[in-house]
Amino acid sequence: MGSSVFHFIDLIGTFAFAISGALAAINRNLDIFGIFVVAFITACGGGVLRDICLGSFPPAGMINLQYFIVVALAVFLSAFFQKLLLRLTQPTLFFDAIGLGFFASFGVHKAYLFTENIEFSILMGVLTAVGGGILRDVLITSIPTVLTKEIYASAALIGAILQILGEKGLLNGATASWSAIIVCSSIRLLSLKFKWNLPAVKQIR
Amino acid sequence: MGSSVFHFIDLIGTFAFAISGALAAINRNLDIFGIFVVAFITACGGGVLRDICLGSFPPAGMINLQYFIVVALAVFLSAFFQKLLLRLTQPTLFFDAIGLGFFASFGVHKAYLFTENIEFSILMGVLTAVGGGILRDVLITSIPTVLTKEIYASAALIGAILQILGEKGLLNGATASWSAIIVCSSIRLLSLKFKWNLPAVKQIR
Amino acid sequence: MGSSVFHFIDLIGTFAFAISGALAAINRNLDIFGIFVVAFITACGGGVLRDICLGSFPPAGMINLQYFIVVALAVFLSAFFQKLLLRLTQPTLFFDAIGLGFFASFGVHKAYLFTENIEFSILMGVLTAVGGGILRDVLITSIPTVLTKEIYASAALIGAILQILGEKGLLNGATASWSAIIVCSSIRLLSLKFKWNLPAVKQIR
Repeated sequence: MGSSVFHFIDLIGTFAFAISGALAAINRNLDIFGIFVVAFITACGGGVLRDICLGSFPPAGMINLQYFIVVALAVFLSAFFQKLLLRLTQPTLFFDAIGLGFFASFGVHKAYLFTENIEFSILMGVLTAVGGGILRDVLITSIPTVLTKEIYASAALIGAILQILGEKGLLNGATASWSAIIVCSSIRLLSLKFKWNLPAVKQIR
Repeated sequence: MGSSVFHFIDLIGTFAFAISGALAAINRNLDIFGIFVVAFITACGGGVLRDICLGSFPPAGMINLQYFIVVALAVFLSAFFQKLLLRLTQPTLFFDAIGLGFFASFGVHKAYLFTENIEFSILMGVLTAVGGGILRDVLITSIPTVLTKEIYASAALIGAILQILGEKGLLNGATASWSAIIVCSSIRLLSLKFKWNLPAVKQIR
Repeated sequence: MGSSVFHFIDLIGTFAFAISGALAAINRNLDIFGIFVVAFITACGGGVLRDICLGSFPPAGMINLQYFIVVALAVFLSAFFQKLLLRLTQPTLFFDAIGLGFFASFGVHKAYLFTENIEFSILMGVLTAVGGGILRDVLITSIPTVLTKEIYASAALIGAILQILGEKGLLNGATASWSAIIVCSSIRLLSLKFKWNLPAVKQIR
């Protein structure tokens, strides 16, 4: 796939995470600036952490005005279509799940371009996907979703592995990316709907 | 303005944030080492985050012994003049407001020197100004001031915009910097005194 | 000492911190993936922060599969030998103390190789030693151990200073490293056992 398709995938992920961040911030009664800050950090935080780990400076999410515009649009839509969005049972987590798939795919793609290291690229896919949500949750002082009893980072991991099959040429590029996105987001959404959990280690104490 | 003036601005910001961090740590009954750690992270955290995003390694706040000395001095003064400092109604936030202005100005200046990118430099000014306070609040497990209902990041944004006018030559350099510092810190202090807030998005649920 | 000895020191520190992270995560009833994430961040977080500050990309803990394997092994052992490990009075802090000494030594060594700057190398030793534990505590929303009333960062500081004596040739290399590790971990363990504390600044308010 061309790089413009990947840029589009990155922007969709940004948009979805920005909505998830904005809804979480509205829920905490933050002011409009605070909502923008939380939305921006949720949307761009994973990518900024990935670019820092790649040694790619300045991080893309900070130097490119497109991300600001996408986040501003998401904040605007979240504020004005709250009623509609809040009909979803867990709106923050719904948009978070969409972003998860897009960012797992894009994160692997960018890291593999830079390093051609399979393990590192998979890790960067997962970091891109879960990093923004972790920062969002730490800032609003919740225990990060990634650490609670739900399928989350594991969905990102499956998406990242599908994407790496495309990078290595084991799958057609477009097939790999779209299946990474769809499988990852679907697993996460289905786990929310049917309350799938991974087993916890039985605590003895 | 010469670079030595900017270095001075950076050290004043460091000193003010170090006092704000030390007072917050004393308030939490941390030991002297913990107080130094919180003061150091509050004072240098924003600059370290900025230097990481700029790709400027090692971060200035970590390699230059002057910052340690300034922080140690601030911790010493905070511990011994507590009685005096605590007469202020919100001493942590008072010194935080002073640091905010100095760091918004210096952060924009350094980022513009490195990148000549206006949007990125404004973002780095805001990050330098609010980063240390966010790290302070996350460490002592408060919701960051920047996200609560007060004019904070927006004051840093106004300071950053004034500073960028100086970098672009639209204002005289010294005028731009001092007005950035004074306007930013004043807006923040006045918002504390008169309890100005930005509007929150009305939450429907 | 040869670099392979230092690599071994780094892996031991990683293993000890991974156990400490895994036990903290089991204690919070996280699922197996969450336990791995917390163990990995605790074990590799300090080194990743150090490498970012050094400008060494990608961070070693992320690109080298050995760290994954060590963390996976630690998680496996923590889950299956819980009963044994939990006989220790504070198992998380016990393994944390072991990791502290190894990482203080290794962090100074790596930073001094890169920069030959004494103050910065000491700071990096402390950051490597305390960084992972801070990230662990922030993620599970505890106030970081480093900030509570116990000898912690100060033990890492003493270890870092002993290591720097070796780097500067004032002590034999092996003597410096092993005394850094043993003194740092012992101070920390003894402070836990005998409840040593540094004085807090008396709070007036």
